[in-house]
Amino acid sequence: MRNIRLVIAYDGTAYLGFQKQSRGRTVQGELEKALQLFMREPVRVTGASRTDAGVHALAQVANFETGSDKTVGEMKTSLNGILPPDIKATEVAEADPGFHARRDALAREYEYYLWNADHPSVFRRDYAYHVPDSLDKKAMAEAIGSVEGTHDFKAFCVAESAAKGCVRTVHSAGIMDDGAGLLTVRIKANAFVHQMVRSLIGTVVEVGKGKRYPGSVRDLLENGDRLSAGKTAPAKGLFLMKIEY
Amino acid sequence: MRNIRLVIAYDGTAYLGFQKQSRGRTVQGELEKALQLFMREPVRVTGASRTDAGVHALAQVANFETGSDKTVGEMKTSLNGILPPDIKATEVAEADPGFHARRDALAREYEYYLWNADHPSVFRRDYAYHVPDSLDKKAMAEAIGSVEGTHDFKAFCVAESAAKGCVRTVHSAGIMDDGAGLLTVRIKANAFVHQMVRSLIGTVVEVGKGKRYPGSVRDLLENGDRLSAGKTAPAKGLFLMKIEY
Repeated sequence: MRNIRLVIAYDGTAYLGFQKQSRGRTVQGELEKALQLFMREPVRVTGASRTDAGVHALAQVANFETGSDKTVGEMKTSLNGILPPDIKATEVAEADPGFHARRDALAREYEYYLWNADHPSVFRRDYAYHVPDSLDKKAMAEAIGSVEGTHDFKAFCVAESAAKGCVRTVHSAGIMDDGAGLLTVRIKANAFVHQMVRSLIGTVVEVGKGKRYPGSVRDLLENGDRLSAGKTAPAKGLFLMKIEY
Repeated sequence: MRNIRLVIAYDGTAYLGFQKQSRGRTVQGELEKALQLFMREPVRVTGASRTDAGVHALAQVANFETGSDKTVGEMKTSLNGILPPDIKATEVAEADPGFHARRDALAREYEYYLWNADHPSVFRRDYAYHVPDSLDKKAMAEAIGSVEGTHDFKAFCVAESAAKGCVRTVHSAGIMDDGAGLLTVRIKANAFVHQMVRSLIGTVVEVGKGKRYPGSVRDLLENGDRLSAGKTAPAKGLFLMKIEY
C-alpha cells in the first residue's frame, strides 16, 4: 500500500466541520467521496486537525492509504476536478509508509480574524467576526500574550474534552492590526483543546471592550474556571493556517 | 438641499452591475431602495464609475441630494442596517453642494486578480480569474506597462462606446506577484473606456502564455484593431479600488 499526503484548503461555511458524521456535509466526507470516485476503491482519510463546523483551512494536512498506481499528479487533477469549489487540494504527495497526519503533527497554527469597524465588512462577511465597539488593542495584546508557554487550558475547553486533560504548550500568540479594520490573532501550539482559540478570542474581545482586565486570561489559566471565561467567538473568523511535522 | 457623499464596498457577484436597469438587481437600485426606506423621500444616487455585472468595488464613490435633517452618522447606521451583506457604506459624509461623484472624479484605480496555480483557489473562487498555465510574468509586465500615457484605447473598447471616443490617460499600470499564486494588475487612469481593463487583461494573459509577443499591446494601441485584441477576461477578477478627486 502507498501512503499519500494531502494539503487541503477549504471554506468551512457550508460544512459541519472536518470530521465525517452520520449525516450532513463534512470535509472528510467530500474528500473520501471524491477519492473513491476515481480511485475505485474504499478510501479512509485521516486529517491532522478536526476543525469545527464553519471553521476554514488554508492548509489542513491529511493522509490516506491506497493500492492505486496513479501518479500523485493524476490524483491531484482528478481530485480537484471532482471536489466542490469550496474544497481544493493544494498539494498531493507520496508520504513515508508510517506517516500519520494527526499523530505526527508537532505544531498547529491558527489565525482568527476580527473586523473592527462600525460598518460590517463585505468581503470578510463569512471570514471574520465583526466587533463594532472601540477596542483597547494594547490590553488585548497583553491578554493574548499571556497564553504563551505550557498551561492547563481547562477554562478554555468544552466540558466533554476537559476530562481527557487540557495541558497544551503555546509556542507563540499575538495580535496584528492592519490599520484598516482587520485584527489578526495568530496562535501556534503543539496542539489545541476543543474550541480553545474561539474561547480565548471571546475572552480577549471582552478585555478589548474594557469589560475585563488584561490579566484575567492569566487568572483563568490559573484557576481553570470555565464558567468565568468569555463567550466562544463565532467559527467563521477561525482559519487553520499550517501544520508542522 | 444637502449633498451627501458615500463610499461603498460591494461584492458584485450577485448584481447586474452598478447602474440601475429596468429589471434585475443592481447596486444603485439597492442603495436607492435602502435610502428611500429610511429617508422617506425619493433618492437618486449618482455613482463615480458604472461597474459591469459581476465587478466588485472596495471604494466606489456616490452622491445624492436630500432634504433630510438626519446626521451623516444616523444615515450610515440606518443605511448599513438595511443594505444586504454584500453592499455596505464605509463612509457617509457631507459634500459641497456642487459635488458630482462622476463628473468631479480625476482618477480611478482598478485592480485585477489572476490566480495562477494548477489548482483553483478556494477563497478567491469568486474574486480572481484562474489561469492554470505557466506564465511569463516579465513579458506580462512589459505588455501592461506599455499602456502608460495617453492613448486611443479603441482596440480595448466595446463597439458601442468606441463611437464616443476612446482616448484616455493611464497614470500607472503594473503587475505584482505575491509568490504564492496571486498576480495583481493595478491600473490607474483619468477614466476608462467600457471593458478596457478586462480586455487588456485578456490580451496580457495571452502574452503571458506566449501566444503573443509583449509588444503586441503597444501595436494594438497604434492600430486600434479591436478584432486583434485578446478575449475579455471574466468580471469576477476586477475590483474598483479608489476614486480620486
